[in-house]
Amino acid sequence: MREIGIGLLGFGTIGAGVVEGLQKNADLIADRLGAKLVVKKIADLDITSDRGVKIADGVLSTDASAVIADPEVEIVVELVGGISIAKRFVMEALELGKPVVTANKALLAEEGEEIFIKAADMNTDIYFGASVGGGIPIIRGLREGFSGNRIESIYGILNGTCNYILTKMESEGLPFDVVLKEAMEKGYAEADPTLDIDGYDTAHKAVILASLAYGFIMPWDDVKVEGIRNLSQQDVQYADSLGYKIKLLAVIKNLDDTDVEVQVRPALVSNDHLLAAVNDVFNAIMVRGNLVGDTLFYGRGAGKLPTASTVIGDLVDIARNMLAGTPRMSPAVPVSSKAVTLKDHSKISARYYVRLALNDEPDSLATITKILADNNISIASVLQQENDASSYVPVVVITHSATEADFDAAFGEMDAADCVNDEIVKLRIED
Amino acid sequence: MREIGIGLLGFGTIGAGVVEGLQKNADLIADRLGAKLVVKKIADLDITSDRGVKIADGVLSTDASAVIADPEVEIVVELVGGISIAKRFVMEALELGKPVVTANKALLAEEGEEIFIKAADMNTDIYFGASVGGGIPIIRGLREGFSGNRIESIYGILNGTCNYILTKMESEGLPFDVVLKEAMEKGYAEADPTLDIDGYDTAHKAVILASLAYGFIMPWDDVKVEGIRNLSQQDVQYADSLGYKIKLLAVIKNLDDTDVEVQVRPALVSNDHLLAAVNDVFNAIMVRGNLVGDTLFYGRGAGKLPTASTVIGDLVDIARNMLAGTPRMSPAVPVSSKAVTLKDHSKISARYYVRLALNDEPDSLATITKILADNNISIASVLQQENDASSYVPVVVITHSATEADFDAAFGEMDAADCVNDEIVKLRIED
Repeated sequence: MREIGIGLLGFGTIGAGVVEGLQKNADLIADRLGAKLVVKKIADLDITSDRGVKIADGVLSTDASAVIADPEVEIVVELVGGISIAKRFVMEALELGKPVVTANKALLAEEGEEIFIKAADMNTDIYFGASVGGGIPIIRGLREGFSGNRIESIYGILNGTCNYILTKMESEGLPFDVVLKEAMEKGYAEADPTLDIDGYDTAHKAVILASLAYGFIMPWDDVKVEGIRNLSQQDVQYADSLGYKIKLLAVIKNLDDTDVEVQVRPALVSNDHLLAAVNDVFNAIMVRGNLVGDTLFYGRGAGKLPTASTVIGDLVDIARNMLAGTPRMSPAVPVSSKAVTLKDHSKISARYYVRLALNDEPDSLATITKILADNNISIASVLQQENDASSYVPVVVITHSATEADFDAAFGEMDAADCVNDEIVKLRIED
Repeated sequence: MREIGIGLLGFGTIGAGVVEGLQKNADLIADRLGAKLVVKKIADLDITSDRGVKIADGVLSTDASAVIADPEVEIVVELVGGISIAKRFVMEALELGKPVVTANKALLAEEGEEIFIKAADMNTDIYFGASVGGGIPIIRGLREGFSGNRIESIYGILNGTCNYILTKMESEGLPFDVVLKEAMEKGYAEADPTLDIDGYDTAHKAVILASLAYGFIMPWDDVKVEGIRNLSQQDVQYADSLGYKIKLLAVIKNLDDTDVEVQVRPALVSNDHLLAAVNDVFNAIMVRGNLVGDTLFYGRGAGKLPTASTVIGDLVDIARNMLAGTPRMSPAVPVSSKAVTLKDHSKISARYYVRLALNDEPDSLATITKILADNNISIASVLQQENDASSYVPVVVITHSATEADFDAAFGEMDAADCVNDEIVKLRIED
């Protein structure tokens, strides 16, 4: 049986998972593909630690460029992470006409355009199924399953660390810092959790999904990103009492066919929405197409074997293309003949949950409602609880939909109002 | 731009949806594919009714064989339904080497083997994404997304009519007959709902999923099928009080690598399981792979445009293969080098919900518990409510796991016991 040689760059958790998966399911993959996928070379700076998988002598190397250039290596898998070195390796492989599988969302979101152009120029494949959603076949579903649909919206819970923290804050009533510490101890959060909890990991994934849905490379720097670092237990409880869960959401919407809205932020999701039932480290992506309606993809968005599952799925696809002599059966990112642009933030419409610490004075609430009304924002409901001896009254306002420009103006006026104390909490509501 | 001509057989709801979808999203599909998909011919016995879509003169025909043979028709879409005529048309198209898209689950489940062999012999494509799950890209996900996984289990809510009825029985407390009548009036159930409510539609889909997962053509006649026709409101309420929803489930399990368990039956699903949150006409499929873990696919399992979405996705795939000159990039059904067989029903292990109408006598319950114990079945819990003047006491027994053989023996003994009245209700529990 024909063997297809694979070169692995980066032998961390995911790399070891890919080797384990290919070994464990070798017969079954060979059955399905009609060829054997064999890891011929692995490059890593550390070639001595035990990764719990058997590796033949001569497979491990510290020289990534030599692995890429090795004649036995027909497909290169980039699992190095980071941007600059990973990019160099990916470009080296593509330059040699070798197809590449990568799970590197940061690389694609920030430097994807150059990589996609290089792959097209060299007429070779770049697959990146594991860059979004780990084991969930969302990229395949979006690019191929929904190829007949105009994508109207995508809502994604795309970061397992954040979802774990939010689930624990909600179910155990613990503050953010305590849950983050616990997540780090359990290995659910990195030693430096910034990329996750400040929303950048989710934003990288959102950019990739938007590119796939709309056929344009998103300007990464323009995406509005807000993480969960400042989320307070108090808001989790208010949201709960109002029938909502708070989730870190990537929101991608295309309502008018040319402008695409892309945002990452913690948002209130109604309890009767399926996304509200996505707990712990699980991810889920809700895609609405103009033919298919609402669909949901759910599964493990990270981790050794789930991520390896998708890397191996990509390897099988590329191997099929190689065996048939037809690379690039699907374009990496589809083309759009229509100009698509990132929607100006100020024009986006939204509903808001607003929590204010007001002075306990008769006209405080009147001041706030006047500011909202002056800025064309109508109020859906107000929740004001008895004052518990503190000098400020916590007031939660749920608004109807209005533009971000109006909200920005209103929040500015509120910040300046004498009756408003502390930071104003503003959370989007996604129904 | 290259045009790829499509011939549509059957111009009912789905056929009109395919035409509508191809027209509505024509530019976008052409962008993504690099070619235009154009419906050149449509065959139906009724060529006069208005389907709400524009059709050029000369496209409609009552002669399906002429449409299949038309030189302008490069891909044939079979939406005729039923088995014998649909099979003849599909075989005619394949015989001419023309690729086929079908949404016909009954045809594939009962006559799939001959069709798949013919497609292979003629080296042409047969795609059937819309045969399971309507708009949900489950077939693509299973065959391609999870090509690196051994599939451990699949749980599917695959029939929208049944799920609508079960949801209404649960949320409105209405009996089966009343909800069925309402579903028929709303168009959610066919005039003859037998295929749906007796579980055969779900079983057809289960057979297709099992074939894809395990690379063998399931013996359709051997699949154990039970529908929801006899489900009583009383059991819906007991299940609810115990923390379960009742769902019509296709259950496919492969625990020991060679025997595959395939069953269709109403089952109790715990409220904290995502499948319990799948309501109304929606479908969902939970797939567990040995690498990816648990995943869920959710969406509209039927209907005009959701089904058309998947038919068009298949057309784009086939068109890509045609443009590249490489049919059969993925096998229709994967091959397995390992012998896989349908698991003998009696060897399957399960937990059960059992409801009995017992005589109101001191030793009734003792008789039942002895029968269960004698057949190696342990009891997890018993729910016996006060007798409400009727002569029989309703008793619900929740068991631990035991083999179907033991349950069959126990149910036989219970049926024969003097203290047991009426039909015994037996529902599987899937945790």
